Amino acid sequence: MVTRLTIEYDGTDFAGWARQPDRRTVQEELERALRTVLGETGHDGRPLTLTVAGRTDAGVHAWAQVASYAHEAVDPLRLNGLLDGDVAVLAAEPAPEGFNARRDATGRTYCYRVLARRTRSAFERRRAYLWPTPIDRRALEECASALLGTHDFTAFTPTETEHSYFACTVASAQWRAHGDVLEFWIEADMFLRHMNRVLVGTMLDVAAGTRTLEEFVELLDGRPRAQAGRTAPAHGLALARVSYA
Amino acid sequence: MVTRLTIEYDGTDFAGWARQPDRRTVQEELERALRTVLGETGHDGRPLTLTVAGRTDAGVHAWAQVASYAHEAVDPLRLNGLLDGDVAVLAAEPAPEGFNARRDATGRTYCYRVLARRTRSAFERRRAYLWPTPIDRRALEECASALLGTHDFTAFTPTETEHSYFACTVASAQWRAHGDVLEFWIEADMFLRHMNRVLVGTMLDVAAGTRTLEEFVELLDGRPRAQAGRTAPAHGLALARVSYA
Repeated sequence: MVTRLTIEYDGTDFAGWARQPDRRTVQEELERALRTVLGETGHDGRPLTLTVAGRTDAGVHAWAQVASYAHEAVDPLRLNGLLDGDVAVLAAEPAPEGFNARRDATGRTYCYRVLARRTRSAFERRRAYLWPTPIDRRALEECASALLGTHDFTAFTPTETEHSYFACTVASAQWRAHGDVLEFWIEADMFLRHMNRVLVGTMLDVAAGTRTLEEFVELLDGRPRAQAGRTAPAHGLALARVSYA
Repeated sequence: MVTRLTIEYDGTDFAGWARQPDRRTVQEELERALRTVLGETGHDGRPLTLTVAGRTDAGVHAWAQVASYAHEAVDPLRLNGLLDGDVAVLAAEPAPEGFNARRDATGRTYCYRVLARRTRSAFERRRAYLWPTPIDRRALEECASALLGTHDFTAFTPTETEHSYFACTVASAQWRAHGDVLEFWIEADMFLRHMNRVLVGTMLDVAAGTRTLEEFVELLDGRPRAQAGRTAPAHGLALARVSYA
């Protein structure tokens, strides 16, 4: 018996998804709520633990994270009553035997939000990266188009490994404007650590004219991390959805 | 010399706009920032104070509040550097001599946001009223249409006055859906205290079937407060914009 959870969280006050000693994490809080209702042990006889589709870092949000566990479904309202206001279970549904939220996911979609204006916002401060520099939107769109397909994203993840090959296949990537918020939407089979944030930091270099589109494209061929741009802050990023076959 | 400010604030941690002893208010924090930059006295020789278009209650937000003061304009970035993250000055512009943000306003537009779903949201918890009961959206729209024109809104504001006539002229009123968020948009020449929140509380009665449209319409004819519905919570409400001739 396996249950599939759909979860929303504001990452601001979490040290990310994954359990860590003495840190407030989404996984720990959800597992505690589940164990309060279902007991300590899953139907597989092992301690009741969650398997997650997309591990998010400290400060990163999730609009529809997916996680699975080996026990029966619980009414989301009951779980939400045991959770703080910044995490909410949206759905808890029985899943096919053997379902695994991480292994079975075929795609993850992330959204990075940039507030492209001069003055900061009282409402966007925890969910969009304030970028007061003029932006060449056409350059952003060209960068996004260059991401489609399979590339070696070594340049976009922290690594000390000398020889590595980090291939991800990008199914869609585009920038969309909503008023003065620019949203970068990207779907891929998998993502490397910090990949979206370094992509955004580097694309913003191109949009500001301090790096060319050609230089950006060359980075997609497995260049060292040092050649890419800054890691954009975590609070602009959200795991938007997870796809299953 | 008069300046017109456009201001955004998250009302969650404020005791409303208007200065009150020993409470954190938007007016007090903004005036303190202005006095730090400009000194204690306005160009009219009186203490530097703000005149506001729409006084908001504790917990109510503003997306584009307007206020005026008798002194020169200051770069918004400088003011924002002196303010906490939940209030932001968006613009500071020279206004015509004699401009008064309250008296000269010809219309105010408010938006009340209802999260119409069963499970709460980590992102909407401070800005939408969770309403898990099924909603008859057509009934909501009919209520909104009935608001157009001039009515006596006595039933929708707290009052102990026996004889009163509280007329407001509603220029537009409608419900709009964005996913599972229903937004009530209303523009009028003026609003009474709690008026939008009681309107929403009463319209939700009609949408839930516990009150008829006809009963709602009768309330617009100056009935006592006790005949209208509950005051919907403050956190769903925002002053969206202010119009000037």
